[in-house]
Amino acid sequence: MRPLILISNDDGYEAKGINELIDMIRDLGDVLVCAPEGARSGMSCAFSATTPLLLTQRRKEQGVEVWSCNGTPTDCVKMALAELCPRKPDLVLGGINHGDNASVNTHYSGTMGVVMEGCMKYIPSVAYSLCDHRADADFEPLRPYVRQITSRVLAEGLPEGVCLNVNFPLLSSSTSSNSGTSYKGVKVCRMARGTWGSEVTKCHHPRGYDYWWMVGHYTNDEPQAEDTDNWALTHGYVAITPTRIDVTAYEAMEKIKKLCDTI
Amino acid sequence: MRPLILISNDDGYEAKGINELIDMIRDLGDVLVCAPEGARSGMSCAFSATTPLLLTQRRKEQGVEVWSCNGTPTDCVKMALAELCPRKPDLVLGGINHGDNASVNTHYSGTMGVVMEGCMKYIPSVAYSLCDHRADADFEPLRPYVRQITSRVLAEGLPEGVCLNVNFPLLSSSTSSNSGTSYKGVKVCRMARGTWGSEVTKCHHPRGYDYWWMVGHYTNDEPQAEDTDNWALTHGYVAITPTRIDVTAYEAMEKIKKLCDTI
Repeated sequence: MRPLILISNDDGYEAKGINELIDMIRDLGDVLVCAPEGARSGMSCAFSATTPLLLTQRRKEQGVEVWSCNGTPTDCVKMALAELCPRKPDLVLGGINHGDNASVNTHYSGTMGVVMEGCMKYIPSVAYSLCDHRADADFEPLRPYVRQITSRVLAEGLPEGVCLNVNFPLLSSSTSSNSGTSYKGVKVCRMARGTWGSEVTKCHHPRGYDYWWMVGHYTNDEPQAEDTDNWALTHGYVAITPTRIDVTAYEAMEKIKKLCDTI
Repeated sequence: MRPLILISNDDGYEAKGINELIDMIRDLGDVLVCAPEGARSGMSCAFSATTPLLLTQRRKEQGVEVWSCNGTPTDCVKMALAELCPRKPDLVLGGINHGDNASVNTHYSGTMGVVMEGCMKYIPSVAYSLCDHRADADFEPLRPYVRQITSRVLAEGLPEGVCLNVNFPLLSSSTSSNSGTSYKGVKVCRMARGTWGSEVTKCHHPRGYDYWWMVGHYTNDEPQAEDTDNWALTHGYVAITPTRIDVTAYEAMEKIKKLCDTI
């Protein structure tokens, strides 16, 4: 039996990134897509606790079924696993996201919500993101990397409780702001420490009240650290960050035990 | 200057849990509250990427300002830090949540969204949750623990990048289903491995289409492991789980490097 690959994203089922991903890997297995109806960026691992969920089949062609769900990326995975998949998927893929999901963005990302959900269900899961927010971003340079990483994870699996967060830098063939025209290679790395600042912009409504838009600027708090995802991306490498479900701070255990002593 | 304590939650500013928390710790510092307008359970670290945000002052009394925001728990913290706090808070508290946030619930929890956000801003942050979903849950037994943990974190801080996820079991004084009438003590523990199953319930709308509610049953996948949050809660202990922002799977690094070799 061919492997079953479940795909979702946080940009919606019509986004270029998810359709490019389908095209890149459709020969590697049976592909089932369940993705949000529209943009769900920044949804993290959120699920819909109080909203009724709807499923709509959008198309079915050459062994690929595409469904949309009105909920979050996490809802899409839960709904697909419960209602759409003919068997337990062999792989969950998130993306390809239009935009960077490195460093602390991991926590906000709906693309990572997809693969965290797959991983929590003990399914090997990989998130793909490109550092380019444009709707017409060029995903073609990613193709050989996406195919190789996907094939290897299909063949060898991943350690239990570990998923992959794969980020691709923007190449200078797509813009003049980068140093190279092809990736320098792949770096397996750690999450950089970074901070979002100036996160809200105040506006004034014509009716006389204030409202705010969430925007912000990201700062890499350790720009010299060559083992981080931010460093890899800044220097033209594909960044692969092994990411865990168990967020226990084991290294802080003794300190916290001391802090809580005699309580 | 008295310490500034920022409080938020995911049950909304009117919930009993957040108002009990305010009452328990108001003498420990200046308290500023910015919480969602209503229930935002399961919102994880989601923020509002496309919705305009609104702030409403609800009350101001005895040194406590209470604001609501129409967004997510994470939005509340970001908005409070950017627009409401007169200085950087010394502490961020989430809760007290009506319901358990142990094990993988950590990833879905809006209460944890609050403290992850505080922690990502390098502010010591503590989440409090009670394993009782009822709107009129009895929070009184938590008071001495919440006061002591809060005081110690105020005095000693927390390691950078580490926040605390504190869960309280339900006592038999509140229900007959538990074994004790007071907590057996405190256990500093790790996240249990657990899985949600049977997560969606299909219903039929009078207009003729299907819709689904997200529900589900949680299974502890390692019920014998005495060092886990689930074990502590099942056995009548207060569970304190040190939780990290850096979700890199360091222990899998070599394996993933081998997997990605020659790509």
